[in-house]
Amino acid sequence: MASASASPAVAPAAAAVPATPMLKDELDIVIPTIRNLDFLEMWRPFFQPYHLIIVQDGDPSKKINVPEGFDYELYNRNDINRILGPKASCISFKDSACRCFGYMVSKKKYIYTIDDDCFVAKDPTGKDINALEQHIKNLLTPSTPFFFNTLYDPYREGADFVRGYPFSLREGTPTAVSHGLWLNIPDYDAPTQLVKPRERNTRYVDAVMSIPKGTLFPMCGMNLGFNRDLIGPAMYFGLMGDGQPIGRYDDMWAGWCMKVVICDHLGLGVKTGLPYIWHSKASNPFVNLKKEYKGIYWQEELIPFFQSVTLPKECTSVQKCYIELSKQVKAKLGKVDEYFNKLADAMVTWIEAWDELNPAGKESAVAPSGPPK
Amino acid sequence: MASASASPAVAPAAAAVPATPMLKDELDIVIPTIRNLDFLEMWRPFFQPYHLIIVQDGDPSKKINVPEGFDYELYNRNDINRILGPKASCISFKDSACRCFGYMVSKKKYIYTIDDDCFVAKDPTGKDINALEQHIKNLLTPSTPFFFNTLYDPYREGADFVRGYPFSLREGTPTAVSHGLWLNIPDYDAPTQLVKPRERNTRYVDAVMSIPKGTLFPMCGMNLGFNRDLIGPAMYFGLMGDGQPIGRYDDMWAGWCMKVVICDHLGLGVKTGLPYIWHSKASNPFVNLKKEYKGIYWQEELIPFFQSVTLPKECTSVQKCYIELSKQVKAKLGKVDEYFNKLADAMVTWIEAWDELNPAGKESAVAPSGPPK
Repeated sequence: MASASASPAVAPAAAAVPATPMLKDELDIVIPTIRNLDFLEMWRPFFQPYHLIIVQDGDPSKKINVPEGFDYELYNRNDINRILGPKASCISFKDSACRCFGYMVSKKKYIYTIDDDCFVAKDPTGKDINALEQHIKNLLTPSTPFFFNTLYDPYREGADFVRGYPFSLREGTPTAVSHGLWLNIPDYDAPTQLVKPRERNTRYVDAVMSIPKGTLFPMCGMNLGFNRDLIGPAMYFGLMGDGQPIGRYDDMWAGWCMKVVICDHLGLGVKTGLPYIWHSKASNPFVNLKKEYKGIYWQEELIPFFQSVTLPKECTSVQKCYIELSKQVKAKLGKVDEYFNKLADAMVTWIEAWDELNPAGKESAVAPSGPPK
Repeated sequence: MASASASPAVAPAAAAVPATPMLKDELDIVIPTIRNLDFLEMWRPFFQPYHLIIVQDGDPSKKINVPEGFDYELYNRNDINRILGPKASCISFKDSACRCFGYMVSKKKYIYTIDDDCFVAKDPTGKDINALEQHIKNLLTPSTPFFFNTLYDPYREGADFVRGYPFSLREGTPTAVSHGLWLNIPDYDAPTQLVKPRERNTRYVDAVMSIPKGTLFPMCGMNLGFNRDLIGPAMYFGLMGDGQPIGRYDDMWAGWCMKVVICDHLGLGVKTGLPYIWHSKASNPFVNLKKEYKGIYWQEELIPFFQSVTLPKECTSVQKCYIELSKQVKAKLGKVDEYFNKLADAMVTWIEAWDELNPAGKESAVAPSGPPK
């Protein structure tokens, strides 16, 4: 593991940064990469005060350059194998799914993860968007998954709950995940990329909203914040890439497990919307098609599965929920493809590894809750 | 009933209007009012090509002025009593809930309803918003209530379904309702109005989205479009105002009955978001508090009720669903207050009156459907 400390000689770029960045000592930024991290230059004003966890994908002998002045730790495949031993099998190789190793080794309460082809976007007034600050705001205010508010996030300045919103639900529920969006290259699947190669997302939608209870959504790992204490062990990005039959479903898998199964069961909230990042380049649609094609048809069986999973009341912690879910994956999806048996085993290994690195007593325990009945 | 025809001598105001307004002969605009309709002057470029149904609330001897050049029919209380006879008891008096009489007498496929204190809003570029045109676009494109799309309405220009959205769900489902929003005075309940008398909604959120299946929302009747053929008989605004223990829950009641019970059962979609109108004046919060206070605590029992209602498969038309719902209202809410027994009876009367004015064979029949299982 390579590491470096912020050199106080390198002053963060002027303006935009708040005097004391929010949650400076309580948040890690996790970045999976195969290349030099020049993209961090643009993020310097916003990221430099924070600690980075870099998960190097692919060839561990390759040297990744990190711009000077950033405080980081870097793990390559050799580090992962050394730290996890045989349990390293649950961490994907040659796929950005390896980022979840960073969630596991972090000791902070909050995680922000971002792809290395994502840059600072501008809001409609031309101002640079501090994506991290918006994620933190999203995570520090409650969610409202039990009833829809038509004026979007009721906790935002200038907004509130509208007429007809039950008063008993206005305290909301703790927010576990903040899902940010992308300007420029939208996060399309290979078939859509092929059909609409020139489509760009230019619409800045000035909203944050809770995803309602019971609703599945496609979670993208490109620009994502979460509360590690509340939901960390459920943020497993599965088995993708090298040696696996699919790719590009890592974040989707995590999202389905996390949202409809665990957050809905434990009464935790998930928000989507702001902040935007600038997604610079579309990945190759032909390569993507190869990675995705099994996912595209398996998904038609996965969605009804996730819509029907229920967890028993005894599942009062994220770990317990996740282990129970792995059993149901094996029982119900194992017949779709042998891959899901392997994935179910990896889910168990992931939790074992998580608990090993995050000693007992720190189990993510939340009492199951929900809207008043 | 008073009526008038558009005088061809009065040319619609220039610019903004499309050459042939969309659905010109298939949509009625329903306006409940107690005053002269001067607000229509501002809407002239957008509304003049359409037929108006004006429902005059309160004293029927009062003469309501309608600006020249509009094609309209006007119903006062005497007209309602004459047309419905004893069944007129289901139409509220001295409350804007009376607007639903207009839905019943319309012969068109689509309805747009707007309050007379709502004016034309401007988009962020300063352009007048043609609210009606946006509602029509919302109604003519499908909804996607079975899975959340993070880039909002996937059918909008420049948008699509994101990676991870199941292909089997991309055809969407017919849209029954388009719920528009409000700039300036937000639609707050009396307690929120009292606490935040100066709050104004200045945030233009450039999005339309489907409200997920199973999710309740507070439907506001101020700026609302719907497909009368698909959902008309469920758009009953209940018993409010004169002689009733509550007010200002008319649109909420209709929304709860319509959305979670009937649209979800029949596989129909509901959208919210654009278009915005400019809501000019806040109603008196003290008067509102008096109207609302029973609703505010009854609501805490109504929401769990609506969340738990299920309809049998035999309910294959909106009318059948609505009659079944009225029975469950009586059985389960009758014990909350005697008012709900009266309301349940009025729901039945409403359907009888609807069917009388909308002869058989034209029953709103849709086969129940849902996402593939």
